[in-house]
Amino acid sequence: MSLTAVAIANTVRFGLRTARDVVETTLEAIGTRNQTYHCVTRLLTERALHMADTLDARIANGDPVGVLAGVPFGVKDLFDMEGLVTTAGSVVLNGNPPATQDAAVVQRLVAAGAIPVATLNMDEFAYGFSTENAHYGTTRNPRNTDCLAGGSSGGSAASVAAGLLPFALGSDTNGSIRVPASLCGVWGLRPTQGLLPLDGVYPFVASLDTVGPFAGTVTDLQRVFEAMNGHALEEIEDVRSLRIARLGGWFLQDVDPAILDGIDRILAFFGSHKEVDLAEVARARASAFLISAAEGGNLHLPRLRKTPMDYDPATRDRLIAGAMLPSAAVVQAHRFRNWFRTGLHELFEQVDVLLAPATPGPAPRIDQATLSVGGKTVSARANLGLFTQPLSLGGMPVLSAPLPPAASASTSGMPLGIQIIAAPGKENVLFAIGKALSHAGLAGYPVLGGPVPDKG
Amino acid sequence: MSLTAVAIANTVRFGLRTARDVVETTLEAIGTRNQTYHCVTRLLTERALHMADTLDARIANGDPVGVLAGVPFGVKDLFDMEGLVTTAGSVVLNGNPPATQDAAVVQRLVAAGAIPVATLNMDEFAYGFSTENAHYGTTRNPRNTDCLAGGSSGGSAASVAAGLLPFALGSDTNGSIRVPASLCGVWGLRPTQGLLPLDGVYPFVASLDTVGPFAGTVTDLQRVFEAMNGHALEEIEDVRSLRIARLGGWFLQDVDPAILDGIDRILAFFGSHKEVDLAEVARARASAFLISAAEGGNLHLPRLRKTPMDYDPATRDRLIAGAMLPSAAVVQAHRFRNWFRTGLHELFEQVDVLLAPATPGPAPRIDQATLSVGGKTVSARANLGLFTQPLSLGGMPVLSAPLPPAASASTSGMPLGIQIIAAPGKENVLFAIGKALSHAGLAGYPVLGGPVPDKG
Repeated sequence: MSLTAVAIANTVRFGLRTARDVVETTLEAIGTRNQTYHCVTRLLTERALHMADTLDARIANGDPVGVLAGVPFGVKDLFDMEGLVTTAGSVVLNGNPPATQDAAVVQRLVAAGAIPVATLNMDEFAYGFSTENAHYGTTRNPRNTDCLAGGSSGGSAASVAAGLLPFALGSDTNGSIRVPASLCGVWGLRPTQGLLPLDGVYPFVASLDTVGPFAGTVTDLQRVFEAMNGHALEEIEDVRSLRIARLGGWFLQDVDPAILDGIDRILAFFGSHKEVDLAEVARARASAFLISAAEGGNLHLPRLRKTPMDYDPATRDRLIAGAMLPSAAVVQAHRFRNWFRTGLHELFEQVDVLLAPATPGPAPRIDQATLSVGGKTVSARANLGLFTQPLSLGGMPVLSAPLPPAASASTSGMPLGIQIIAAPGKENVLFAIGKALSHAGLAGYPVLGGPVPDKG
Repeated sequence: MSLTAVAIANTVRFGLRTARDVVETTLEAIGTRNQTYHCVTRLLTERALHMADTLDARIANGDPVGVLAGVPFGVKDLFDMEGLVTTAGSVVLNGNPPATQDAAVVQRLVAAGAIPVATLNMDEFAYGFSTENAHYGTTRNPRNTDCLAGGSSGGSAASVAAGLLPFALGSDTNGSIRVPASLCGVWGLRPTQGLLPLDGVYPFVASLDTVGPFAGTVTDLQRVFEAMNGHALEEIEDVRSLRIARLGGWFLQDVDPAILDGIDRILAFFGSHKEVDLAEVARARASAFLISAAEGGNLHLPRLRKTPMDYDPATRDRLIAGAMLPSAAVVQAHRFRNWFRTGLHELFEQVDVLLAPATPGPAPRIDQATLSVGGKTVSARANLGLFTQPLSLGGMPVLSAPLPPAASASTSGMPLGIQIIAAPGKENVLFAIGKALSHAGLAGYPVLGGPVPDKG
């Protein structure tokens, strides 16, 4: 049975179970079940067992250990892990030297006692929403393996949803945490942009990149985020007094009605009928597309000139096109972004929390190439970011919360997710809301083999 | 005889002379002498006389007046002036409505009692270093009317050097205050980027734009800057203890030896032999060129598509080229800028003040198309910014100081200028150094018809 990070740490800290046993059980489960999901790309067996033994010795010795003692986790394959070449989901970087140290946030988690056991699949260079990787295969959605897990941190979301890992790390530029969290039915956090260090994380779009955690419960997610951030969040005394609203307009169109129903239930729970409109969301999405293509294209241009055929075809073509965009389009995208971000931040003078769908609907089938958006047939892949991408421009923290299983009756049990958005730096508001919703049964979807979490 | 702003304000405040007399005398002098210099584009006669009368009435009534009471000044033709169409040195904007209020910094100066009397010539849309304007003519250097005044704030520098105005406002993106201040032999300040509001100033390059003052004495310059900034600067107690160094490498090549001599004298005065090297200055200049072309091009693209032939040919071609640059070049320029700026700011952990030439040499003749840089014959115009443009990337405040007349023996009396550079927000350091040098006779060049200023 899958256990939460909190449960594992409690049993390990108090000597009820060894970290070695936890790690061995985890590696075994991955060894057996990963062929179904293709979420893990590399196991860190030797390192993980060594760390577990060191931790067990400390505990036997009565030395203090961290709050995540013995908790196994995985990292999207763009976090530096000491001794491994960081692939960023590509083969283009195979000639790079191995990383000389772990990425900064990984170091913080290790300092808290957590044990990295695996690297996880992703879209090449994080440029996609589907985790269909020409080099490392397609990650399957653990809720239905005929469906996409979402991306680009699809391996991270799937490993948690499958109950293989209690938590995992991903990155979110345009929605790469929120989209797979939503499609796989787990919790994910895009933190305030600039809050967590990106040292040792392979970049994509410097203007938009963030890193954050996935977990099966919001309590686990908060504990992991606090370890990544280096300190505990300030508690919110009176959650019910928070001013909560939903985003209207763009965020009500082309959405599965079950997601809007889930949002309505949450609003009702808080006694709110407030809806907030945001202007020019289509332009915001275009702006994020242009900035991503241009900055990604610039980053890869020297390698694209040398070894273009080593790239995943879909990634290559978009990066080259991005590098060649006329500068005026990109300058204009940044001018627009400044204006749009100001407007977004001003919304938080009237409200504490905004709700929006995370994706248009449940995970598409892997063989499903298109979606219907605004009555038009559009690519399923790019449009998974319809609701996440515009919000990336604002730099606010966004909690991706799974609606409860009851909300998925119309989707044959495939999870649906929402975005809970707060002002920059207000992660504590997000977790307060997330925990309240989890306790009320308005959010949270049990991972495979796991207990129903956090029910009050 | 030309008077300083301080002298004028003292006589007006104490009722020794009316503001009307000051303004009338100023307008008369401009009327007579501007045909020689072409520095003024429009007189604000009616408004100026009305303001003068209002001020005189207040003084007669014993009401308090500001520290710049009755001091006439001019503004580069890109500051909004209530009731006038802001031309930005072009005819492209002629269809715009008149400004409904003065630019923010103009409002602050007016609140301090200063009286705007004229708008001043510039390169079209501030894109140049020569103030040769296809629509409004070429501004002549008051020190030798066969020579360029420099640009793009050439009308501002020339009006002060000619003794027509005690101070004037300009803007500095890549050197547009420092270059003309240097070539005309007046003081100019590029303030810390972001310090002064740009509201009501026609933009050029949002990433680099600043506004600042010109004056004939450093004391006047400080008083004007303080009024623009809204409060007095903190005094530096012990100027001699400031750590001062010159910039080496790039900043010692292709410079008139008289400028380096002037810098050496200043270093000797402070007992310093320190030289600081800055890596990748050529790339910094390229970065500033690319960012300027791209952001300027983006700003003008809609108008360039409609009315290209209304632009000055030199401006038009560069703006179109800038808008069409591949995005990768501009993204890379910004990445480089971030790196270069960090390095620049780190220099100020070791020193308080850096010295560098402001221009390669004295003002070129108007008929002189080329300069020699690194043994190569290059365009005289673009290369006037050789030493100012790379420093713009850092956002630090830079005081452009004229070397004393004695330094100009080899240049037939044509002024030479240096840049005095401090860490962001340290304008007080710049003025402390500037006043010390002025008192020691190591900087300062009397304006036409003016007294030798600030001598200790």
